[in-house]
Amino acid sequence: MKHWKSESLRLYLVTDNALSKGRTLTDVVTAAVAGGVTCVQLREKNLSSRDFLAQALAIQAVLANTQVPLVINDRIDIALACGADGVHLGQSDLPVAQARRLLPAHVFIGWSVETLADVARAHSLPVNYLGVSPVFATPTKPDTETPWGLEGLRLARQTTALPLVAIGGIHMGNAQEVLQAGADGLAVVSAICSADDPRHAAAQLQALSQAHFQEGH
Amino acid sequence: MKHWKSESLRLYLVTDNALSKGRTLTDVVTAAVAGGVTCVQLREKNLSSRDFLAQALAIQAVLANTQVPLVINDRIDIALACGADGVHLGQSDLPVAQARRLLPAHVFIGWSVETLADVARAHSLPVNYLGVSPVFATPTKPDTETPWGLEGLRLARQTTALPLVAIGGIHMGNAQEVLQAGADGLAVVSAICSADDPRHAAAQLQALSQAHFQEGH
Repeated sequence: MKHWKSESLRLYLVTDNALSKGRTLTDVVTAAVAGGVTCVQLREKNLSSRDFLAQALAIQAVLANTQVPLVINDRIDIALACGADGVHLGQSDLPVAQARRLLPAHVFIGWSVETLADVARAHSLPVNYLGVSPVFATPTKPDTETPWGLEGLRLARQTTALPLVAIGGIHMGNAQEVLQAGADGLAVVSAICSADDPRHAAAQLQALSQAHFQEGH
Repeated sequence: MKHWKSESLRLYLVTDNALSKGRTLTDVVTAAVAGGVTCVQLREKNLSSRDFLAQALAIQAVLANTQVPLVINDRIDIALACGADGVHLGQSDLPVAQARRLLPAHVFIGWSVETLADVARAHSLPVNYLGVSPVFATPTKPDTETPWGLEGLRLARQTTALPLVAIGGIHMGNAQEVLQAGADGLAVVSAICSADDPRHAAAQLQALSQAHFQEGH
């Protein structure tokens, strides 16, 4: 069990098997953790429940002796069965209040926000952090809403004191701006999963993030 | 909360939105319950978690003042969130032992068996009934294993004392044989969901089942 702290958001890997260039998720996660990711979210929309759980238990084993929490996307049952540290809920997943009732108190909840109204609504919900999604347009989740952009992220930052992790189209070329706009962390999919060297890609992003937060932002 | 009893299996409706001819599941279930179904299983593989839960809560409302239990297929989280009476697990869903740990003791568990080895294995698992699936070939679940046939069902009956519900291609024309082969109940999808009059279809199957069990089988 890894207790919630907002520093876990700093470099947040969201897995995508289809974008991992034929490598196993276990291999990608192992490399990403060696490179410095601070959180791993397992997102699987196409696996059977049994395969999803097997995948989650394999990733749990990779993370066992680290400080890196495992977050399960959407599936409370998988999170409970694998002993995940957190869950992440989108707007079409279980309502936050219902998820909270099903989870032990130490399991943290992240929630994707697509509008400033969502951000405002989060204040009355039992969420530990918000996922500002998508910051930039991305082929990973083509069905989501209009991107927030950096200006939208700044507005979200002004609207809430909840920790914000930004996701969607983030890479080395724009990560600095995302942090300067007020994100507490960078969530990436393809910038690590699809990198030729996931460990190196994670290490570069980690160094950039560390430099930003050491400057006292 | 409706406590488990094997008589609930006698006429067991498994829902399928796609086979319901444009009628809502709520309407089909309401009619089927009026006709005499004794159990309703909600099976949804394509809905979002939020929509699946909304559907489950709507069906729970229909069943609230009846003796008909609600069973959720696969999704333990949805079952917990809607207060289902049972869950049904297939071979690619969560392992039975893990599901049992996540569920309150009063929530019953059904498990689909595809081979006699599965039937034998069930003796060491915390299951309340077995789904013999499919008894006959069916377009509803085209990806499943070789049908059991009536002879296979008889062998399953000889192998276990657990309650058996037969599913797959059952209709008025073969229901009698299925019961004579040893099933404790008939599970149907299209025979009710796709019927011109789901209430009448349920009533016919219910009468056939009742006649069989009143003869003392």
